[in-house]
Amino acid sequence: MGAELLRLLLVHPRVTLTGVTSERLAGQSLGSLYPHLRGLSELTFHDLDAEWLAGACDVAFLALPHMESQKAVPVLRKRGQKVIDLSADYRLHDAADYMTWYKTPHVDPAGLAEAVYGLPELHRKAIAAASLVASPGCYAVGAILATAPLLKNGLARLEGIVVDGKSGVSGAGAQGRKVDPMYLYTEANENVQAYSIGGVHRHTAEIEQELSALAGETVRVSFTPHLLPLTRGLFTTASVLLATPLGTAELVDVYREFYAGEPFVRVLGESERPTTRSVVGSNYCDVTVVADPRTGRAVCVSAIDNLGKGGSANGVQNLNVLFGWHERTGLEAPPVYP
Amino acid sequence: MGAELLRLLLVHPRVTLTGVTSERLAGQSLGSLYPHLRGLSELTFHDLDAEWLAGACDVAFLALPHMESQKAVPVLRKRGQKVIDLSADYRLHDAADYMTWYKTPHVDPAGLAEAVYGLPELHRKAIAAASLVASPGCYAVGAILATAPLLKNGLARLEGIVVDGKSGVSGAGAQGRKVDPMYLYTEANENVQAYSIGGVHRHTAEIEQELSALAGETVRVSFTPHLLPLTRGLFTTASVLLATPLGTAELVDVYREFYAGEPFVRVLGESERPTTRSVVGSNYCDVTVVADPRTGRAVCVSAIDNLGKGGSANGVQNLNVLFGWHERTGLEAPPVYP
Amino acid sequence: MGAELLRLLLVHPRVTLTGVTSERLAGQSLGSLYPHLRGLSELTFHDLDAEWLAGACDVAFLALPHMESQKAVPVLRKRGQKVIDLSADYRLHDAADYMTWYKTPHVDPAGLAEAVYGLPELHRKAIAAASLVASPGCYAVGAILATAPLLKNGLARLEGIVVDGKSGVSGAGAQGRKVDPMYLYTEANENVQAYSIGGVHRHTAEIEQELSALAGETVRVSFTPHLLPLTRGLFTTASVLLATPLGTAELVDVYREFYAGEPFVRVLGESERPTTRSVVGSNYCDVTVVADPRTGRAVCVSAIDNLGKGGSANGVQNLNVLFGWHERTGLEAPPVYP
Amino acid sequence: MGAELLRLLLVHPRVTLTGVTSERLAGQSLGSLYPHLRGLSELTFHDLDAEWLAGACDVAFLALPHMESQKAVPVLRKRGQKVIDLSADYRLHDAADYMTWYKTPHVDPAGLAEAVYGLPELHRKAIAAASLVASPGCYAVGAILATAPLLKNGLARLEGIVVDGKSGVSGAGAQGRKVDPMYLYTEANENVQAYSIGGVHRHTAEIEQELSALAGETVRVSFTPHLLPLTRGLFTTASVLLATPLGTAELVDVYREFYAGEPFVRVLGESERPTTRSVVGSNYCDVTVVADPRTGRAVCVSAIDNLGKGGSANGVQNLNVLFGWHERTGLEAPPVYP
Repeated sequence: MGAELLRLLLVHPRVTLTGVTSERLAGQSLGSLYPHLRGLSELTFHDLDAEWLAGACDVAFLALPHMESQKAVPVLRKRGQKVIDLSADYRLHDAADYMTWYKTPHVDPAGLAEAVYGLPELHRKAIAAASLVASPGCYAVGAILATAPLLKNGLARLEGIVVDGKSGVSGAGAQGRKVDPMYLYTEANENVQAYSIGGVHRHTAEIEQELSALAGETVRVSFTPHLLPLTRGLFTTASVLLATPLGTAELVDVYREFYAGEPFVRVLGESERPTTRSVVGSNYCDVTVVADPRTGRAVCVSAIDNLGKGGSANGVQNLNVLFGWHERTGLEAPPVYP
Repeated sequence: MGAELLRLLLVHPRVTLTGVTSERLAGQSLGSLYPHLRGLSELTFHDLDAEWLAGACDVAFLALPHMESQKAVPVLRKRGQKVIDLSADYRLHDAADYMTWYKTPHVDPAGLAEAVYGLPELHRKAIAAASLVASPGCYAVGAILATAPLLKNGLARLEGIVVDGKSGVSGAGAQGRKVDPMYLYTEANENVQAYSIGGVHRHTAEIEQELSALAGETVRVSFTPHLLPLTRGLFTTASVLLATPLGTAELVDVYREFYAGEPFVRVLGESERPTTRSVVGSNYCDVTVVADPRTGRAVCVSAIDNLGKGGSANGVQNLNVLFGWHERTGLEAPPVYP
Repeated sequence: MGAELLRLLLVHPRVTLTGVTSERLAGQSLGSLYPHLRGLSELTFHDLDAEWLAGACDVAFLALPHMESQKAVPVLRKRGQKVIDLSADYRLHDAADYMTWYKTPHVDPAGLAEAVYGLPELHRKAIAAASLVASPGCYAVGAILATAPLLKNGLARLEGIVVDGKSGVSGAGAQGRKVDPMYLYTEANENVQAYSIGGVHRHTAEIEQELSALAGETVRVSFTPHLLPLTRGLFTTASVLLATPLGTAELVDVYREFYAGEPFVRVLGESERPTTRSVVGSNYCDVTVVADPRTGRAVCVSAIDNLGKGGSANGVQNLNVLFGWHERTGLEAPPVYP
Repeated sequence: MGAELLRLLLVHPRVTLTGVTSERLAGQSLGSLYPHLRGLSELTFHDLDAEWLAGACDVAFLALPHMESQKAVPVLRKRGQKVIDLSADYRLHDAADYMTWYKTPHVDPAGLAEAVYGLPELHRKAIAAASLVASPGCYAVGAILATAPLLKNGLARLEGIVVDGKSGVSGAGAQGRKVDPMYLYTEANENVQAYSIGGVHRHTAEIEQELSALAGETVRVSFTPHLLPLTRGLFTTASVLLATPLGTAELVDVYREFYAGEPFVRVLGESERPTTRSVVGSNYCDVTVVADPRTGRAVCVSAIDNLGKGGSANGVQNLNVLFGWHERTGLEAPPVYP
């Protein structure tokens, strides 16, 4: 996630990268850790020192492990610095929810209460006025953007929402940290599996928080994440019982209206299908919806790059909103195909 | 599918391969089409001539395109020959169902009525007595084996069953026939997509036929297939509303009892997870079930090789049942890992 | 190749894309053929009409099949238009060489004689003054950049140069055209093979032309291309007998001096190794050289993106040189990792 | 390597697996470490105790890390037990060579002197009479089988042999041991790289030992290994200067004669090309040779499964030779395609 952020920020026309931090890699150059960045930056990793960071920049991106962000954020905010947090630490508004899903009390409940959930399609205005943006989890982006128009428009029955998430491996395996054998090439290649089965993946909490807000009442989803043999890409398939019988064309119109003007959501028509290949390397979310009249359901599908709209590129979109820049600034490059 | 069948039959200790047919490849040697079989067989492809075939063997496997099997089967059966059909032609018992899903009348309704659905875990006795076995579709095997114990035991609420199937590319792209660009390496690699969205995939009909029979009443499923970037492997995730609140341990016990004695279904326990890698190259189906008490659902997952239990190996198991051989005959080789 | 060119030109700050042509797709929109470009351009494909093209733009890129470019180029040049040709048609200076390797006479020998081989690292000045630039073949770029410093400096013995090229599948399988089964996912995935074995691949001619020019005498190389299971990336391993015994550090210095100031060649040091992953999506060529004192050889390795420095991005670099723009214009985006 | 050996031995009709050892996993069941073997064996890992092992079986396979085998082997041999060693410890006959390549003295020079290099195509008789068989390295098998007919028949000039080896990742990343980030999915997928550049890979020593023996004088090869993004498969491309000008047909005849009667080497003809996909999961080596008259060279290519003929399956072939069984016993299963 940090590497993808650097890739984007290094060529963002409004951004100067003033520092990068790492406890483990302090003193090393960016190019030595990330060979693709050789020659592209003179920066070396600095110790993770929130005080130093607060003095070094106008806005800080945090791509820290869970539990680390909530230690650094208060220091940065005390110094008046804006923060875009890519970790999970500030995504849930309710400290009790946080406790339920993360099994530990939040150390910065004040920050938690003020943080804005960083999905511009839902919270653009609040992000623009925020001092702390909590960029969403990758599965949450896929699930929320796939289903939001139905929930916002009262078209979904709230029981029985089933969400199946399928992610590439870059969503997980952090380079240089403790490596789960599951992420070895010989294990992950030519393999598919579900994990966190039974509704225990933490992105479930974000999905329910946001869908409940859209619906105006509590929404529960049955969410199952899967690990697929590809590097980048996240595909979401959501099955939603319709409150009213609607055909595919009508449903697509609802989506087109909901996402009208959005720079990074492309609503596909009846003869088109989202594929992760069409969005990889970009901030796009391709989405469509199909009616299944036999079962009274809508099948909602979305494709994102888990490191793009599901991660760092969405973080850059938040940056653009936060500073009042055009939202496509630094995010114009088309998806990388093939 | 045909290639995988040859791989298995060439070393099946009770089988002598007496002929292979192909309209397109008549006269060519097996090894010229399938370089992995070079030196393993002296056979050449013979014209697809059902009369010749009827005289050439005791049992015929058909791995023909849809609509072709129903032309060949009556000829073979008239000559008293047993047939194991790997195509979709004889899977639905009801000619009206066939018409609904395949949009054309069946040309051999008598055969359709007599054919046995070739899933030994459900129909072992009928297969043993059959003259025509219709080997199931790959997605159907994955979905049925993942959920059968719940439906058979009255533990599922019949509305709201959502099935998400994820298949490797070998489930689709036939070598030498008209190639959909979707199956090119540059399109399928590093890509995920849903297709036949909205409950229109024909395996849906098989799934509903078999689950309805298990439940004793009509079952509807919302099924969405996906194409994943791997050669072999099919993973199924089914979400089922529970009629009674049960925990994971209780559910696993139900599965263990249901599949007790099955030579090719491995029920995994609470700390284990099916992966396609663990079954590739074999006839195994690894399956487990997890309770999601928040939503009152069971999440049922299964992993098969789409060419194995989802195809040709399951066909060989049918052969073994049909001829009264030990079911593991010719299928003893462990999965190929990694 | 055309798709990659569009990806780059659509965001090139000095370029306005005024038209795209295709015989097969005339009338269709860019986004319908290339779903990743949905919403990024309003262009539709125009018939391949060189006269129309000549009036529509200041410079034309041709990404046509072999033999088609040499028909279009004379029309364009007669109208005074600059052309950057990505096909193989204008790469060999000598019409007799062309005849030898392409088995047919060239229809535009005048153009052939004037065309400049579009590798800026060797021919920057000539490209700047050219009206017709022949962008090199992907294997040729990899092989030439890997070995040029040795040949230019008289450090190589000219017999016994062995070059092994390894390319991803996007180097070959054109979408929508006749598809060789070799490029199907089920054939190309989890597979490696050599092809055009025995020195018959046509890029051999380019490699020898350019290395001979550098060495000042005829160079022959034994070149073998390979197809690997990845979408993008081309890795070259060249083994060269040294005329003088030199150690790795000395050799690396030779490379550093040769490529000093080059914006897209990164010479790696003794502890670093090129990987295709570090250059994918970019115009970079990462290169290094290691002495093998046991055999008196230097092993020269380079990594490029076959669609990048081995194709369209190098074409854009040629464009920048041709128009006197900074060479990194439109090519600043870092490689896409992971 | 150990997992692949278990896959083969569990269904070898002449073998009963009496024990498996592991220091790290003692007490665990086979199925808990290798989920594909669930239900296929009741064995649990036993401490690595050579004394116990000597009493437990008639023959022991060792798949230990380098340096560990040479500690266990003397204990086993003192007890009169036959050993097939899959490690590198006993492959070089000359203790000085061992010292040169492994930078440490061998602790069992007597064993080293008696061990037979376990490539049946070259040493069948010696293996049959051996008490200690050193199964070759994967790259060595590929390189030796690709070039042996030329060297044995005096057709090669001994200077200037260049060998390029390309291996899948299963050749390297051991599950559960210290993991090099290079073998993570996100690093190895969609990536190619050379490593051990400059003739320093230890398999070079084996290749030179065996080719020198065939040629009757010292042979030096310039060998470069590569890591490719596939799980199984090893492709070798060797470029050899011909001592006599021969055409492809003549060269293929030489190979056919050399390998006549070999159960696992398939010599392909002029219109055929080896691919790793055609041998994966088997003990086959597919090989061919093509003349390059322009450079006076032969290009020799071979395809094996690095865990098959390059590892455990070749070990089983050694077992069959050692015990006088038919060499195809337990190795009859065709390659797994696709």
